[in-house]
Amino acid sequence: MAFNRKDLLGTRELTVEEIKTILDTAESFKEVSTRSIKKVPTLRGKTIINFFFEPSTRTRTSFEIAAKRLSADAVNISASGSSVTKGESLIDTARNLQAMAPDAIVIRHRSPGVPHQLAKMVEASIINGGDGAHEHPTQALLDAFTIRERKGELAGLQVAIIGDIMHSRVARSNAHLLTKLGAHVRVAGPRTLVPPQFDKIVGESEGSITVCNRIEEALEGSDVVMMLRIQRERMSDAFFPSLKEYSIHYGLTLERLALASPECIVMHPGPVNRGVEISSEVVDSARSLVLDQVTNGVAVRMAILFLLAGREID
Amino acid sequence: MAFNRKDLLGTRELTVEEIKTILDTAESFKEVSTRSIKKVPTLRGKTIINFFFEPSTRTRTSFEIAAKRLSADAVNISASGSSVTKGESLIDTARNLQAMAPDAIVIRHRSPGVPHQLAKMVEASIINGGDGAHEHPTQALLDAFTIRERKGELAGLQVAIIGDIMHSRVARSNAHLLTKLGAHVRVAGPRTLVPPQFDKIVGESEGSITVCNRIEEALEGSDVVMMLRIQRERMSDAFFPSLKEYSIHYGLTLERLALASPECIVMHPGPVNRGVEISSEVVDSARSLVLDQVTNGVAVRMAILFLLAGREID
Amino acid sequence: MAFNRKDLLGTRELTVEEIKTILDTAESFKEVSTRSIKKVPTLRGKTIINFFFEPSTRTRTSFEIAAKRLSADAVNISASGSSVTKGESLIDTARNLQAMAPDAIVIRHRSPGVPHQLAKMVEASIINGGDGAHEHPTQALLDAFTIRERKGELAGLQVAIIGDIMHSRVARSNAHLLTKLGAHVRVAGPRTLVPPQFDKIVGESEGSITVCNRIEEALEGSDVVMMLRIQRERMSDAFFPSLKEYSIHYGLTLERLALASPECIVMHPGPVNRGVEISSEVVDSARSLVLDQVTNGVAVRMAILFLLAGREID
Repeated sequence: MAFNRKDLLGTRELTVEEIKTILDTAESFKEVSTRSIKKVPTLRGKTIINFFFEPSTRTRTSFEIAAKRLSADAVNISASGSSVTKGESLIDTARNLQAMAPDAIVIRHRSPGVPHQLAKMVEASIINGGDGAHEHPTQALLDAFTIRERKGELAGLQVAIIGDIMHSRVARSNAHLLTKLGAHVRVAGPRTLVPPQFDKIVGESEGSITVCNRIEEALEGSDVVMMLRIQRERMSDAFFPSLKEYSIHYGLTLERLALASPECIVMHPGPVNRGVEISSEVVDSARSLVLDQVTNGVAVRMAILFLLAGREID
Repeated sequence: MAFNRKDLLGTRELTVEEIKTILDTAESFKEVSTRSIKKVPTLRGKTIINFFFEPSTRTRTSFEIAAKRLSADAVNISASGSSVTKGESLIDTARNLQAMAPDAIVIRHRSPGVPHQLAKMVEASIINGGDGAHEHPTQALLDAFTIRERKGELAGLQVAIIGDIMHSRVARSNAHLLTKLGAHVRVAGPRTLVPPQFDKIVGESEGSITVCNRIEEALEGSDVVMMLRIQRERMSDAFFPSLKEYSIHYGLTLERLALASPECIVMHPGPVNRGVEISSEVVDSARSLVLDQVTNGVAVRMAILFLLAGREID
Repeated sequence: MAFNRKDLLGTRELTVEEIKTILDTAESFKEVSTRSIKKVPTLRGKTIINFFFEPSTRTRTSFEIAAKRLSADAVNISASGSSVTKGESLIDTARNLQAMAPDAIVIRHRSPGVPHQLAKMVEASIINGGDGAHEHPTQALLDAFTIRERKGELAGLQVAIIGDIMHSRVARSNAHLLTKLGAHVRVAGPRTLVPPQFDKIVGESEGSITVCNRIEEALEGSDVVMMLRIQRERMSDAFFPSLKEYSIHYGLTLERLALASPECIVMHPGPVNRGVEISSEVVDSARSLVLDQVTNGVAVRMAILFLLAGREID
């Protein structure tokens, strides 16, 4: 099996073969959650720590359920109850966790690069559950899984990613992953929130990413539309004037969606702001795969936990 | 077995046969918690989510222990760490949880009707862990279980429920349940906190509920006294003058208890405010079944989880 | 096996034989955490409640991992989400937890003596996870385990404990335990934070504890140095002038450590304040056993859970 990594830090460094291994493994695990007894003994006796410095229902719950369905022991630590509040450095906290012999640590942190630092310090597998505006690899992997499930394969697809591109770890992780798999990515959003050099910043193969000036340009003929979540806290930073204004200019409505391919599917990492970046009609339409993404998230995280925590260390 | 419901939302809609099924099932599970190995494999591979929007030690812990003793995987989500703080609607949160294929979701929420709404939206069994001042069915069921255990049966018993009837989900759920099982319910408390039409509001069979003007009237000859918890936060709403005043007029003392039947048992949903709604002498007396209620709570919740999450979906 | 206690409340009351039983049992459990499948069925069907009134990553996580590796069901309760915030007395909360039939309750509380009170009220084994400035027996036991592992035995060793002796439950529990095992303890720290009568307060066999006026005196020829954590909150109480000042006068540097025996080992209960009570060079040196302490903490807690929760009640 083509997977020999210790950690999952981002999609940038993954090879096409590694990505396919993760997606194929996820496919075989997806069925487990449909059984009457939703549990396999695969990771019995393994310890998975969920270490979340930012609140999260869905990602933490998804990892916890994935761990438990693999029979692993899951331990949750949130920042508020942690030693970090006692002034201990993050590195010391990580070394301390390592000393308890976990097999994998899932970490979410507001600072980019934190998972990468930890990965160097500890033997346990580190899984990036979102590091600032940098990467969120399991989200991108579940997105790719969801697209592949519907479209057969990603090569040749036109994928529009729309919203606050600049601050989005989801956009960044997807830009790497989708282009590696042969899709073409177009990004669009408010001028203040789309880096004009995004294609060069991301640095995947030339011509695979287009920065569009208008959302309509990005949507036109798209096979997949990924809407990003508006982070209300950006409002105060005056990146854009108001939620209403945002909705008028960049919200995905049925009208705008008509510009896309007739078989276009719609995705969103959640949680959705209905009526802001996406209309309720679109969220609730047959084209929306928002809930499939969540379902697939459990399968993809089972696959990642299995590939990382299940590997035998020499 | 006479139980074909997907959800447990309240006691109002339960039939006598369904109630008896729950109580009989709880009886068989009660023994598990007395074993050296307190665990049965009944719900292995099932996922139970505890979703609590209000703080709760006893109810959440009781459900979690019940789930684990049935070998289910229990996942806790509290409101503070949840997407709800990110502005997602409750319905979207529920749909997202559903997408992770849980078998049951226990929900506590300050707004009446929230569990009922969720039950319509998701396939998982919804268990109402308390919705505002509306219902708290597992509390009423464990109360009924505790009475039945001591008294043999409920038919013909006089049950006094005393305190803040208006805001009490425990009073409401018990009023439905106890009268269905043939008990007679009398309610009493401060004038501002007892709706004079409570018997009609509850709407069970006529004559089965009496609204008393004085606590002594309710106590007289009672077989069971249920004291309700004073919610200190009501104080500021000027529903009653002070804790001391409350205690003098409505607190259950040994003197007042002497009005009841000599075999009268005393119950309280907890947490108890000693010296306010109930004196320490009463709480600690042999008549008090407060801790039996807690013990039985685990058994009743095991029964409910088993009947709901253990059913095979067609 | 020489262990017939219901509870572990402190090291003061432990006999030498009991201590050896705990350490020997921990030795046999330590290997479990090095296996590929880090789990034994020893405590299957037992319920362990972690009840933490003070935030703690390492102690709570250590107990949770210990419980899970023994196949017990672990339930976490933190003070913020608990009934205690609803005005229930601690004793009532404990009785309520007891009513759910746990096998052991680990409690951390800021008030000295709380675990001892609970132990009298409940049937479950109570494990003191730290009670104010009083005792923290599992920390002292893991410290003794770590010393024994390196030094073979404790009898005859010179152990320096340095820092805020007055407020330290770690110092107190270690003073009892180490002297029982035949080590000699010297304590030193800021004048305001070292009770001059500490040897008499602790009250172990005469001559086994020396209160030193200067840290250098305590260090000289030591086989073990235990640095205590500076609690920044003491700063405002004017017990000592500033962190910088503290570091200059009482911090463990490589220079000061040169006063100790050439084979001297360095310990710290964590979390470490680098550059305050201990320099980074010392923490990261080969002499530092800070992370061994954490690893051994899991083994020692497995042993304690096994000896207490695994005993058969008549």
